[in-house]
Amino acid sequence: MLRFGMVGGGPGSFIGEVHLMAASLDGQAHLVAGAFSSDPAKSKTKGHELGLDPNRIYGTYQEMAQAEAAREDGIDFVVIVTPNHLHFDIARVFLEAGFHVVCDKPLTTTLEDAEELCRVVAEGRSVFVVTHNYTGYPMIKEARQLVREGRLGRIRRIQVEYIQGWLSTPLEQTGQRQAVWRTNPTQAGIAGALGDIGTHAHNLARYVTGLEVEELYADLTTFVEGRELDDDASLLLRWSDGARGTLIASQIAYGEENGLTLRVYGTEGSIAWRQEEPETLMLKIDDITTISRRGTAELSEMAQRYSRLPPGHPEGFIEGFANLYQNAVRTIEAQKAGDHPSIADLDFPTVWDGARGVHLIERALESTRSGGWVDARYTPPQEPSQ
Amino acid sequence: MLRFGMVGGGPGSFIGEVHLMAASLDGQAHLVAGAFSSDPAKSKTKGHELGLDPNRIYGTYQEMAQAEAAREDGIDFVVIVTPNHLHFDIARVFLEAGFHVVCDKPLTTTLEDAEELCRVVAEGRSVFVVTHNYTGYPMIKEARQLVREGRLGRIRRIQVEYIQGWLSTPLEQTGQRQAVWRTNPTQAGIAGALGDIGTHAHNLARYVTGLEVEELYADLTTFVEGRELDDDASLLLRWSDGARGTLIASQIAYGEENGLTLRVYGTEGSIAWRQEEPETLMLKIDDITTISRRGTAELSEMAQRYSRLPPGHPEGFIEGFANLYQNAVRTIEAQKAGDHPSIADLDFPTVWDGARGVHLIERALESTRSGGWVDARYTPPQEPSQ
Amino acid sequence: MLRFGMVGGGPGSFIGEVHLMAASLDGQAHLVAGAFSSDPAKSKTKGHELGLDPNRIYGTYQEMAQAEAAREDGIDFVVIVTPNHLHFDIARVFLEAGFHVVCDKPLTTTLEDAEELCRVVAEGRSVFVVTHNYTGYPMIKEARQLVREGRLGRIRRIQVEYIQGWLSTPLEQTGQRQAVWRTNPTQAGIAGALGDIGTHAHNLARYVTGLEVEELYADLTTFVEGRELDDDASLLLRWSDGARGTLIASQIAYGEENGLTLRVYGTEGSIAWRQEEPETLMLKIDDITTISRRGTAELSEMAQRYSRLPPGHPEGFIEGFANLYQNAVRTIEAQKAGDHPSIADLDFPTVWDGARGVHLIERALESTRSGGWVDARYTPPQEPSQ
Amino acid sequence: MLRFGMVGGGPGSFIGEVHLMAASLDGQAHLVAGAFSSDPAKSKTKGHELGLDPNRIYGTYQEMAQAEAAREDGIDFVVIVTPNHLHFDIARVFLEAGFHVVCDKPLTTTLEDAEELCRVVAEGRSVFVVTHNYTGYPMIKEARQLVREGRLGRIRRIQVEYIQGWLSTPLEQTGQRQAVWRTNPTQAGIAGALGDIGTHAHNLARYVTGLEVEELYADLTTFVEGRELDDDASLLLRWSDGARGTLIASQIAYGEENGLTLRVYGTEGSIAWRQEEPETLMLKIDDITTISRRGTAELSEMAQRYSRLPPGHPEGFIEGFANLYQNAVRTIEAQKAGDHPSIADLDFPTVWDGARGVHLIERALESTRSGGWVDARYTPPQEPSQ
Repeated sequence: MLRFGMVGGGPGSFIGEVHLMAASLDGQAHLVAGAFSSDPAKSKTKGHELGLDPNRIYGTYQEMAQAEAAREDGIDFVVIVTPNHLHFDIARVFLEAGFHVVCDKPLTTTLEDAEELCRVVAEGRSVFVVTHNYTGYPMIKEARQLVREGRLGRIRRIQVEYIQGWLSTPLEQTGQRQAVWRTNPTQAGIAGALGDIGTHAHNLARYVTGLEVEELYADLTTFVEGRELDDDASLLLRWSDGARGTLIASQIAYGEENGLTLRVYGTEGSIAWRQEEPETLMLKIDDITTISRRGTAELSEMAQRYSRLPPGHPEGFIEGFANLYQNAVRTIEAQKAGDHPSIADLDFPTVWDGARGVHLIERALESTRSGGWVDARYTPPQEPSQ
Repeated sequence: MLRFGMVGGGPGSFIGEVHLMAASLDGQAHLVAGAFSSDPAKSKTKGHELGLDPNRIYGTYQEMAQAEAAREDGIDFVVIVTPNHLHFDIARVFLEAGFHVVCDKPLTTTLEDAEELCRVVAEGRSVFVVTHNYTGYPMIKEARQLVREGRLGRIRRIQVEYIQGWLSTPLEQTGQRQAVWRTNPTQAGIAGALGDIGTHAHNLARYVTGLEVEELYADLTTFVEGRELDDDASLLLRWSDGARGTLIASQIAYGEENGLTLRVYGTEGSIAWRQEEPETLMLKIDDITTISRRGTAELSEMAQRYSRLPPGHPEGFIEGFANLYQNAVRTIEAQKAGDHPSIADLDFPTVWDGARGVHLIERALESTRSGGWVDARYTPPQEPSQ
Repeated sequence: MLRFGMVGGGPGSFIGEVHLMAASLDGQAHLVAGAFSSDPAKSKTKGHELGLDPNRIYGTYQEMAQAEAAREDGIDFVVIVTPNHLHFDIARVFLEAGFHVVCDKPLTTTLEDAEELCRVVAEGRSVFVVTHNYTGYPMIKEARQLVREGRLGRIRRIQVEYIQGWLSTPLEQTGQRQAVWRTNPTQAGIAGALGDIGTHAHNLARYVTGLEVEELYADLTTFVEGRELDDDASLLLRWSDGARGTLIASQIAYGEENGLTLRVYGTEGSIAWRQEEPETLMLKIDDITTISRRGTAELSEMAQRYSRLPPGHPEGFIEGFANLYQNAVRTIEAQKAGDHPSIADLDFPTVWDGARGVHLIERALESTRSGGWVDARYTPPQEPSQ
Repeated sequence: MLRFGMVGGGPGSFIGEVHLMAASLDGQAHLVAGAFSSDPAKSKTKGHELGLDPNRIYGTYQEMAQAEAAREDGIDFVVIVTPNHLHFDIARVFLEAGFHVVCDKPLTTTLEDAEELCRVVAEGRSVFVVTHNYTGYPMIKEARQLVREGRLGRIRRIQVEYIQGWLSTPLEQTGQRQAVWRTNPTQAGIAGALGDIGTHAHNLARYVTGLEVEELYADLTTFVEGRELDDDASLLLRWSDGARGTLIASQIAYGEENGLTLRVYGTEGSIAWRQEEPETLMLKIDDITTISRRGTAELSEMAQRYSRLPPGHPEGFIEGFANLYQNAVRTIEAQKAGDHPSIADLDFPTVWDGARGVHLIERALESTRSGGWVDARYTPPQEPSQ
């Protein structure tokens, strides 16, 4: 069982709790250290609540990296769940101290930082996972496999959208912690909805289709008065291999909960998937409409591998998230043992995926500024060939 | 009971049959004459099959207009269901002969023609209906009423899409009649998917929201090799009153049947509607998600008016289409009786709605050509104020 | 085009309007005569409203049968849409006058009457249709075909339910016309919910599976105080060939609209269908879950035959009802022409189906009285072998 | 953090893994001991795989009870996940050794044993939880709360069904471990489908409605040849306070996954819930149909308490199961601290709920034998008043 530490995730954090549940679910990693808040008292409170050894509750992440590196029983990896603007510094410190890293998205707030991390990772031996967690759902694995096998033919249209309604009022003005930092350019970076959820949509579409965006046209808007970042984004995309489509990210879509949906249309078939009902993948192939379900014997090995329960016993968000941790842990364990991780274990979003997301944000802002199509082709530094 | 004639709708026509069922359903109009095909033999066959008096089966529409105008028991209105390129001439001939007109969409193949029809209608006394039939569904009436009453607050996002898969192969090369003319610029006009179904989507969004498109950015594509017109269109739209959104029209979306959907997000509520399940309107207002259903006592008078059956007894496409005919017939009857039709009876798509659709097509082509935003504001000639 | 008359269907009738729309939809029959109400003034008003020749608006059905029989251009068939207790007398009078009959369900209020009609029909030449309209839906035709082809293997479980909520309050005490007669034993007969909608459920399950009920156990209840007939019924059924299942009919299921659903489980597959979404049939065969849809090319000829529109253009209750009329009209036309109707045209519910429904009601009441299983095997007099 | 041990859950166990994930998810309990199999080698393997101290991997549960009782750091509670026939002995041994118990369902294979456990629990101080896990879903808590508040009025109809298809072939003959023991009377007890899943359905309906079964009529069937226990059960139920309904449990419903559904109809409202989409509760109250969703601010405190994630981030089976563990752990902690657990913490299925399930099984078998209604009223020994 691996040991890990957490940076961020103090009181009021949403995603910190998710990471803890996801990392623990399968009993493969357990939390032993943390720097949960920039306020040492809050960090202490949280660490105590989690039952940590008081000596391993740290006031700063720098201190934590140093102390854990010095311990025989130090952590194997760190989980970074702070607001976006801190990802870069924290990740670099832990990478340089030789730790593996699991970092929330978007990777960084500037492309320069993202590229720097790519280089550090490429030159070191650390495993680096960016938690684009929606790729962890078994039916997304199945979708990817179907595309790879050519079951949809050549892909023509990709419609991906991620729409939420929780920011349709100026919630940040009430002090709600999640809203405050996600709408604040100092902490969130240069993009709002596009960065927070649009990058998930982008990564999901790439993951399933294996295609990359080549040109984009973006219309970013801020609907809520007084807000500094976009809360709504519509993009036209031209993908590699001639595919086209739209990407929509909005946090002012009144009444929407967590509306990430993906539809892919090829010359010979199509798929549709909704995150809010993640156990089902709709397939239309050979004029037959099939409901494909997690846990059934008909699925590919790729999808079966991530199933814990028989069909009809719903798995959800935490289980999907935990699937990233399963691969992260297996890969780190292989690394520790001096083995090569299997290709299947390496199936998690990497620092290069993260950099591609940051690049998309920058290009979308450029397109909005210029009012025209922009070239969106990009290869992050030292990205391994696939 | 009114009497009507039909131009077009010969053997192999889809929409001709629909008009016949829709016009007859409520027993308010019956077919007495027709020029069903440019081939007189085919016209004869069809008319005979429909049980018409042989004297009223015509070889040409010109002949029909003249002969019917001369009869004491001549038709009250004509239904035009030919390919698009003929709408203009036929409509003009019948308008000039003093008949009322029900014309399929898109109105014409050029804006010039559309505007000419606007002028002719404005100066005459004829009722002119363009069959954007999807506005006839009761739950669309309800949606429009909710927006008008301000239940959604100010509208921010409009997502409308109309996607089909039936043209994802070069079906026109097999001789399938519907595919042949709809992909042929000579008959269909300058747009393919955008004209055939995109104009329905545009009209539906306008009808429900009461807003108009002010700027648009279009990306029209032809995916199927050898096809001359677009079979796929993605548009970014900026609507009046600050709303934004997307309009997607595609006929190469493999596996989609008749996927017209509308989602409207306001500051205080949102609605979602799918044509394939037209009896249901999803509402999210005041943080409550409600399923609103045709036929229930909770609906507005606007929606109740168009209900024939109790809830749970599904009404569908033909019934929705027939709702346009109900209003057309009532308005024509009022006209005949020298009365003013009621405002409720006048609730059908007009020649001006048709012209707005043709204008949208032209602007979308211009945007695709120029690669940039285009101004899409437009008022058709002599449009009555509402 | 056939001519028909109607008995019943006066002001406030629901089902009369439905029959008129269903008979007219495809332009194959038109109303020329009627005795719409036992009140001659009301009959007159209704007939006038429908544009009938005043000479053919009758004060009584006896008068109508006699007068129409005497006309050269008399009706071909009569449609009986009165409350249940009148079906028998009216049907007999018209049968004896040589007319074909379309009669609403349940056939009669006593088994004796039902059997008498069976004999009269068997000995005459009249076509007799009982409007168990739910068998008219194309996807029900498909379901039946799949069972016949053995795609489900041997049938084990049949779960059919028909639940509504409109009688969950004592609506009859408000004078609502539909509620008044349907809860009144003098007009409705010996059963309430079971007769009104339970017989539809019974007929639907028989039609799809080809099986017959052999034993039944019934628990009929009256929940609303002061009501004389059952408003809720739960039945355990043992079907031929070893199948088992439940039949539920309730009109006090608060909030349910028109919840007729059928699920059939066999050794090798299963199907599920919901009347409120009638265009879809769910299939589970060979471990694959398929959504089968009306109008698609994959369906059997049996189902395709009843499709008017492409898939995704919803057909509903009226269209399904009209499918019974299509077959009735074709069969009557064949009869008139001295031809044999095709087997496909003869696919409508007969007087024998109606008698089986009346028998089920009687047995269910007997079981409720005795508190035990009752034998439910039955063959109506002179039922043709299939 | 509490310490627990497990009895059962060796290689090939399904439910053992579920308990482990559910107990660990929220980091409140961790496994420290186990007797995983009656085969000591298998027990060892499993314990090792789970990273246990070899000294605490036991060959028998008796040994484990004794050894853990003797340790200072012994377990707080035991989790029993063996086949049914062992529940009683194991539970008694651990209760007598002073441990708290979490036991899978059905409680025991005879009513005598169940009643004996009731007495032991009543006389001791141990917390005893029977894992009718479906009551742990937040939307079930909401449903129960709505009924309690009288939002549905007086309850009339209860339709509960739990249908699966996995035993529609003689799977036990292939050696599949789950199928083997669940169809074997020696291990499963006197009932098959009714015991395995019917008791869940029964408990769920009781939990939500607060009613008890008073009379029942059962039709148990074995469809698969060579099987000794029922694989299909249909029950008519008469509940307290005049409600009626059906309970269906089947494991031969081809194609069904884990189809537990509950519908409750009252005089003023109704609810519907499907386990396969557990985040949604359908409400029909005051003629409005509402979709109520886990995680939203509109829910009762009862439902909110069990939510980990915002709405739209699906929670599923494991999270629902973990909600039972949360309450179990809190109650045990209160016990240890000498405090009274809160009423909210005591919301888990008890030994008395378990006994009621076993009683239902016995009565259903009696009804099937006698072919008539049987009295099903029952109060287990020493059941606390609520």
